[in-house]
Amino acid sequence: MFALKKLDRSAEEKIQQIIDLKTKPPGALGQLESLAKQLALITGNDRIKLVQPTMLVFAGDHGIAQEGISIAPSEVTQQMVLNFLAGGAAINCFCRVNQMAMQVIDAGILVPVEHPDLRVQSLGQGTCNFAETKAMDIKAVEEGLHLGASIVYEKVAAGSNVFGFGEMGIGNTSAAAAILSAFNQLPAVDTVGRGTGINDQVLAKKIQLIDNALELHKADLSGPKEILAAVGGFEIVQMTGAMLAAAEKQCVLLVDGFIATAAALTACKIDPAARDYMVFCHRSKEKAHRLMLDALDAKPLLDLDLRLGEGTGAALAMPLLRAAESFYNEMASFESAGVTEV
Amino acid sequence: MFALKKLDRSAEEKIQQIIDLKTKPPGALGQLESLAKQLALITGNDRIKLVQPTMLVFAGDHGIAQEGISIAPSEVTQQMVLNFLAGGAAINCFCRVNQMAMQVIDAGILVPVEHPDLRVQSLGQGTCNFAETKAMDIKAVEEGLHLGASIVYEKVAAGSNVFGFGEMGIGNTSAAAAILSAFNQLPAVDTVGRGTGINDQVLAKKIQLIDNALELHKADLSGPKEILAAVGGFEIVQMTGAMLAAAEKQCVLLVDGFIATAAALTACKIDPAARDYMVFCHRSKEKAHRLMLDALDAKPLLDLDLRLGEGTGAALAMPLLRAAESFYNEMASFESAGVTEV
Repeated sequence: MFALKKLDRSAEEKIQQIIDLKTKPPGALGQLESLAKQLALITGNDRIKLVQPTMLVFAGDHGIAQEGISIAPSEVTQQMVLNFLAGGAAINCFCRVNQMAMQVIDAGILVPVEHPDLRVQSLGQGTCNFAETKAMDIKAVEEGLHLGASIVYEKVAAGSNVFGFGEMGIGNTSAAAAILSAFNQLPAVDTVGRGTGINDQVLAKKIQLIDNALELHKADLSGPKEILAAVGGFEIVQMTGAMLAAAEKQCVLLVDGFIATAAALTACKIDPAARDYMVFCHRSKEKAHRLMLDALDAKPLLDLDLRLGEGTGAALAMPLLRAAESFYNEMASFESAGVTEV
Repeated sequence: MFALKKLDRSAEEKIQQIIDLKTKPPGALGQLESLAKQLALITGNDRIKLVQPTMLVFAGDHGIAQEGISIAPSEVTQQMVLNFLAGGAAINCFCRVNQMAMQVIDAGILVPVEHPDLRVQSLGQGTCNFAETKAMDIKAVEEGLHLGASIVYEKVAAGSNVFGFGEMGIGNTSAAAAILSAFNQLPAVDTVGRGTGINDQVLAKKIQLIDNALELHKADLSGPKEILAAVGGFEIVQMTGAMLAAAEKQCVLLVDGFIATAAALTACKIDPAARDYMVFCHRSKEKAHRLMLDALDAKPLLDLDLRLGEGTGAALAMPLLRAAESFYNEMASFESAGVTEV
């Protein structure tokens, strides 16, 4: 379905030499140096080129939200979609100040919205409640992967080579926790967190619910697509497809929080080559995010205690990519600047 | 000399309410929320206004560099000043991509440079070797504080209200470590690090040298200005003056690495009110930076393993300030967006 290639690392030594000859002590730009190396490998060995960075925000509703394990009711998903479309949410602000284009996608919200700027590619009006039955059937997973990919292919054709992946979906930390539990065979107590702010009592209920669901679906967690079908979400499925498509097209993938990283983990389970194209942007306050990052051997650029989603951590990291691009492409070498090499 | 006022916090509750009514769960923007609060208190309670952010890069040479405890010889200070003026250094790249103005200042380099864009306010051709004698006399400290302040007053008069403080000076991690040792009464083994990359042998020599110097000057470390005179640097003195002036004018101060934080610590010892205006931007890889940050009760925005100086950590954090400005000024409230409050 997706034809990913592992990143060609044959120019790695040459790229490292370019970085080491810049007018700074070796390694003095820390994580920006490894970022620059990755961006050069992906976008152009001699010159990093970041073109039309685009934030894709996928929205979907979750049957599990009926169980009352979120701080907000499902209608907030639709309200926030309208807020995105009106330009009033945090992700709008961060995309504006950091010059990212933004596209909102209805991947399957409960109450549909009509708006000229909304891309509707809905898999249904919310998933089924995975505490009772599968979230969706495997056909919906396949379709969702395609739909998520389709928007990336269009944006790539229009020139973009950097993608952020944001989400909105009341209940989606439950799905993400269940996905992590399923992949890493961990009890819910290790993977469930407070989402955007539930209390102790709701937290205990959420843990119990997810442990029960994992037990319910245990015969159906044999692979990444099966896990998505059992406990995933429409926005998570489409994000996974979008990530695989972006990696296939050798773009830069900006991965931030708990939900986005659940999609990234799933994409890497489907094809491990996707990992090479991922830049990890932010360490979420959601505690199990750390386990996902460890599973992906990832050290994020930012750690600002965000727990909002929407792609906010990815949008906030975009200037660091531009800084890496700038120093790699424009900074003087010891020779060109006449500086004694250290 | 400087007439600082503590930050007026009377609007704190109102500002917190503005933040809490934005369309996001309370606290979900983490450190950006406390940043927005501080910026609103400093620049305007109803609306954050960041105007013409300006990076001031102070260069100075150090007599202590004669002892061979740096990875580079003193002539690199002048070479890097020329590199700054030609636009080729890391700080030039980061100021360009993050829309900061940049001003290079000769605070006292060994071999003067003539260039139309260089502001020369030299306190001498490098400090004396503080392993043998005081780095400078107290008159030079007073003069340096004034000179550092003067450029800030001019930029404030021209409209700027955000300042970064960068530095270049071979040997200046030794001065910064000695300043920290003097303030916190710590042996050099706790405050001396590898700078931009010295080996074990040179590190041991650097520690011994600074312990000896602290012993030599122990009768002359009675206050912040005396400490600057004994073991400081011309660029550190001028940075300290510039920081005090910026705080006096109720501007936002961007503080990043080991040297800049040594100046910030000194500024706060001269007038603790300066602390209210400081935004800590980056945790340096230089190990004792942590001790300085603890002394200032500071949690930096970034932790990217940089160890370069020049103000690079401050310039890289500038987009986070703009993101805070943007969400505080532009993000919809629950009411305005019609989103159910959580």
